[in-house]
Amino acid sequence: MPAYHPLSVEEAIELAKSISGHFSADSDLSCREIGDGNLNLVFHVTDKHSDKSIIIKQAVPYAKVVGESWPLSLDRARIERQALQIQHKLCPDLVPEVYAYSDEMAYTVMEDLSRFTIMRKGLIEGGVYPNFAQHIGRFMANTLFYTSDLGMNQQEKKVLAGQFVNPDLCKITEDLIFEDPYRDSPNNNYSDAIADEAKALRNDTQLHFEVALLRDKFLTRGQALLHGDLHTGSIFVTPDSTMVIDPEFAYYGPMGFDIGAVIANLLLNYASQPGWSEDETILSGRQQRLLNMCTDVWKHFENNFRQLWDKDLQDEMSRTPGYQDHYIAEVLRDAAGFAGCKMIRRIVGLSHVADIEGIKNDEIREASQRKSLAIGKALVRHHRSISSAEQLIQLVQQTVHETEVSL
Amino acid sequence: MPAYHPLSVEEAIELAKSISGHFSADSDLSCREIGDGNLNLVFHVTDKHSDKSIIIKQAVPYAKVVGESWPLSLDRARIERQALQIQHKLCPDLVPEVYAYSDEMAYTVMEDLSRFTIMRKGLIEGGVYPNFAQHIGRFMANTLFYTSDLGMNQQEKKVLAGQFVNPDLCKITEDLIFEDPYRDSPNNNYSDAIADEAKALRNDTQLHFEVALLRDKFLTRGQALLHGDLHTGSIFVTPDSTMVIDPEFAYYGPMGFDIGAVIANLLLNYASQPGWSEDETILSGRQQRLLNMCTDVWKHFENNFRQLWDKDLQDEMSRTPGYQDHYIAEVLRDAAGFAGCKMIRRIVGLSHVADIEGIKNDEIREASQRKSLAIGKALVRHHRSISSAEQLIQLVQQTVHETEVSL
Repeated sequence: MPAYHPLSVEEAIELAKSISGHFSADSDLSCREIGDGNLNLVFHVTDKHSDKSIIIKQAVPYAKVVGESWPLSLDRARIERQALQIQHKLCPDLVPEVYAYSDEMAYTVMEDLSRFTIMRKGLIEGGVYPNFAQHIGRFMANTLFYTSDLGMNQQEKKVLAGQFVNPDLCKITEDLIFEDPYRDSPNNNYSDAIADEAKALRNDTQLHFEVALLRDKFLTRGQALLHGDLHTGSIFVTPDSTMVIDPEFAYYGPMGFDIGAVIANLLLNYASQPGWSEDETILSGRQQRLLNMCTDVWKHFENNFRQLWDKDLQDEMSRTPGYQDHYIAEVLRDAAGFAGCKMIRRIVGLSHVADIEGIKNDEIREASQRKSLAIGKALVRHHRSISSAEQLIQLVQQTVHETEVSL
Repeated sequence: MPAYHPLSVEEAIELAKSISGHFSADSDLSCREIGDGNLNLVFHVTDKHSDKSIIIKQAVPYAKVVGESWPLSLDRARIERQALQIQHKLCPDLVPEVYAYSDEMAYTVMEDLSRFTIMRKGLIEGGVYPNFAQHIGRFMANTLFYTSDLGMNQQEKKVLAGQFVNPDLCKITEDLIFEDPYRDSPNNNYSDAIADEAKALRNDTQLHFEVALLRDKFLTRGQALLHGDLHTGSIFVTPDSTMVIDPEFAYYGPMGFDIGAVIANLLLNYASQPGWSEDETILSGRQQRLLNMCTDVWKHFENNFRQLWDKDLQDEMSRTPGYQDHYIAEVLRDAAGFAGCKMIRRIVGLSHVADIEGIKNDEIREASQRKSLAIGKALVRHHRSISSAEQLIQLVQQTVHETEVSL
């Protein structure tokens, strides 16, 4: 294989043909580049003679966000590929299969998921995913437990953690989530309408204290191999099934970070819903469903995690009575805090979410932004006293009620 | 350089001659192997014509402890050498200089410290080290601050942490300190006289809970590059000066682990003192001096650490008011807990300390063992509520008082 260069469509087809046992000899392949062009090339290769298809994802050596470009290590393709393989092994039905890869060329050939919908889009359109909480709860329990000191040999875990040193991608998280929203950063991105909110965030030292605690956890707490970017744009769904993709931010960090990402993105959609439905009955049904999904995500995570702990614990001292409860309680507190940070950054930081940005009505969009910020701040502020998923949701509802009263 | 083999005395002399700018052309070198033979060969090379000398330390691919032998990675020589270089750069007067090294041959050529005394031996003999607390406080503050996310670039820290993945040596700590003393392990080593204590340790689930918390911190909390084995046998002293050696257990872990190691070993000597002096005045003077050293070690660490934080902080969010106090308070709680674990393991675990083992009188030795265990258990049990060094010492004194009443 030659030195790194971006694949052409023709090369992608040749590569697809070379994957043994996939396309038959008489296949007639066509290929489209379907990436969003920010971080990766994505080639969709299909056979005109059969329903077979594959995806080739190739990293490019820079990131483009809002016109800006900065260099990014190609090693992230190796990290993403290795994380995919580990996660697929632990949850074969929830993570696409890797068919082939080249670390030098920074590509991964994998299962095509074009029959799925990106969950963010699905939620915006009011899609219902009754199995999602169960699926993502199991995904997180399995991937987090079995890559932690609880579920694997503690020496092998250290070596594995060494393979997921991921400074470039972690820097994006550290800057965009745990720093920029709280200072006057050129990366920030918000409309004049909520400039008062952005300014308040910069001056709220009580909030900064809690963010500093969460940032420190992200920087130092190597509990498990995280997905690292588990928002609803990294999750593909159908009404029945769920697939988790894009783990290029994978690294060893605090378990609550992944769980918080899922909850934050459900709550961002929750806060956006008045922008997507004028029918009060539909609206309140959707909102209730999203809040229930949050508690269900946590419950499925917790139940699965406790089962794995009881069945496969590798750490003798962790058998101590009461320790499992204590451990899981901390994961929930962390999840609440990280969820809050992630909501805040999606409103005032560099990168926003279509759930809210896509709202056409200016007033409703602004109200959704303010609501998201209020929820995010409440979660950050109170995360250390959250002791159940129900309490988390009560805090959300109480905050929304207070925001609506004050708007 | 040929493939790894243990150096002969003749090869050590040839190697010493090849170190540029050290010995003159007319030097007449002699060499003695002075290692204890457990983990390393140590060659002491001296020139008969001058007062110049050097140390060559070479790792062997196994560990011998109490007759047992187990394989150990030679990579620990590279880890030790790199840690020495980082620590020397941060504290040139407190860490020996590395003159040369070979990672393939697993040796490091360094400054000879034979004019120093091993601190454990010095303390047993009643030595007084008025500068020690100041020195070791500064050593810990500098090495821990500047290798943490507080004092260095957060991306460079991740890469550095990847270079200190140290599973073999961490396993020794994890087994011997955080597991064996609390279960019926063949590694444990104690006399029949204190079998009741050892049994009580195995059944004390309340204590196990606190140990599990501390073990989890050791396994997952990559705060700073630790020395990792900072007991008084890794510290060389004269009445005026201090040198820290042997960082082969170096890895990214919780700061309190190093501080706890120093405090634990001072307290083990404190608990041993009735075995070394029959003169009540001398005894109480020594004991008070050791307790004062503990508080002074913490105070010098804290003062230096706060100064570095105020001067050189690299992390914006950590400037938040109150965060420094919060951070340091956690380090103290951790230090108290780790100190307790280290005291306990030196009494019932595999590896003991000469301070206590060397006591000739059986009854006094047993009393010292029980006292050490009582202090260790109290520190572990209450570590999460320790809020000052004075409170830590009060807990020690109260525990000793209760132990003496009950003996």
